[in-house]
Amino acid sequence: MNIVLLSEEDLHPAGARVSGRRAQHVLRVLRLGRGDELRVGLLNGPLGVARIESCDEDSLELSLCWHEAPPRPRVHVLLAVPRPKVLGRLYSPLAQLGIARLILTHASKVERPYFDAHQVAPEYAHEQLLEGLSQARDTWLPRVTIHRSFRRLIEDELDELLPADCARALMDPGQGPSVRELSAHARDLALAVGPEGGWNDFERELLVAHGFLPHTLGPRVLRTDVALLAMLGAIGAP
Amino acid sequence: MNIVLLSEEDLHPAGARVSGRRAQHVLRVLRLGRGDELRVGLLNGPLGVARIESCDEDSLELSLCWHEAPPRPRVHVLLAVPRPKVLGRLYSPLAQLGIARLILTHASKVERPYFDAHQVAPEYAHEQLLEGLSQARDTWLPRVTIHRSFRRLIEDELDELLPADCARALMDPGQGPSVRELSAHARDLALAVGPEGGWNDFERELLVAHGFLPHTLGPRVLRTDVALLAMLGAIGAP
Repeated sequence: MNIVLLSEEDLHPAGARVSGRRAQHVLRVLRLGRGDELRVGLLNGPLGVARIESCDEDSLELSLCWHEAPPRPRVHVLLAVPRPKVLGRLYSPLAQLGIARLILTHASKVERPYFDAHQVAPEYAHEQLLEGLSQARDTWLPRVTIHRSFRRLIEDELDELLPADCARALMDPGQGPSVRELSAHARDLALAVGPEGGWNDFERELLVAHGFLPHTLGPRVLRTDVALLAMLGAIGAP
Repeated sequence: MNIVLLSEEDLHPAGARVSGRRAQHVLRVLRLGRGDELRVGLLNGPLGVARIESCDEDSLELSLCWHEAPPRPRVHVLLAVPRPKVLGRLYSPLAQLGIARLILTHASKVERPYFDAHQVAPEYAHEQLLEGLSQARDTWLPRVTIHRSFRRLIEDELDELLPADCARALMDPGQGPSVRELSAHARDLALAVGPEGGWNDFERELLVAHGFLPHTLGPRVLRTDVALLAMLGAIGAP
């Protein structure tokens, strides 16, 4: 935990009150006490420094000094739901690298039972994303939505999820210009990443028809999780 | 398995004979039989196509047609041994993204028992690396060496491990030019990645004194595994 993340509910007019696991981490792992300072962040808000004004066994009373907010992430990931074990391990890295939104979708090569896995549940995602944010000293919580109909997502829902001027790119092994060319963009960018085995023809054509231009990381055939992290590194988000 | 990897020992004058797990994969998972073709690669050599001339329950007799070898990877990774569980999961992604060499080293913040973990054993690394290569359709097996003395590695051993004209860079959160500037290099490149918590001052100074120039992926504080994959994506290897 490189910062302790606070939410609006932790705040009161004179500072913040933190209890439970975060307080225990500060007291027992970081071994801080009254008078010590620690780095904090307000979820979807500024970074800052907190001073422990008082504490008991599992709560802290903090005074706060806010600095600037970190830059807002501009990459939106549209991802065909991977194997639950792989998905479970992806949330923290995605939050560490910084994304605005994670749009999880069905596709012909996604197995339906994946949607019932605990790794798809919002509570699981939330906790893992917070862990990644506090590792990376970021406060922008990626928004996660789950879509069981690919076609409805692309045709009806996507325009409301993405900013109006958002560039759209489709990851394609070996086809199109390099994803590295996307790195110069200062605008929002949506990246579509298919399932192991790829999108089928219908899915690919629907994405292209909705503005997703094929880009490549090179000819290597990468697993979803590896491709996603390498791609975010190539783009340099944020 | 996107290619079946063969080694010199599998070859004979008329083709190759494959048995054991690879043969079972071809026969039972890919469900191929006599007359079918499959993609193959020769370890540290060319890619090609094989035709199954005959087969029995767990062996294949192949005729071979070789094409070109994939480009030789030019990135060498010097990595302070991470937690064994993290290391175990890194081999395949590193092979998928393509590296020439993995130099695993001790550092003040590496715990000594890590060196006794089964994930550090050459057999474990070998198997995981092969899995990553056959996923990525590559044949260049990263060479792995393990060094229990950081100082001896940097002062005495490194010059023999790296090509003479190899550029050297040190990953540093927030300091130096961007790692993306390294992507234009056509020469070999060695990247030093520290342990969780970073190199200590002595280690950092020794690396800089031996030509490792600080480069950054940005101000975010990333875990080793996430930093490594994002960095290789940023550099674009190979």
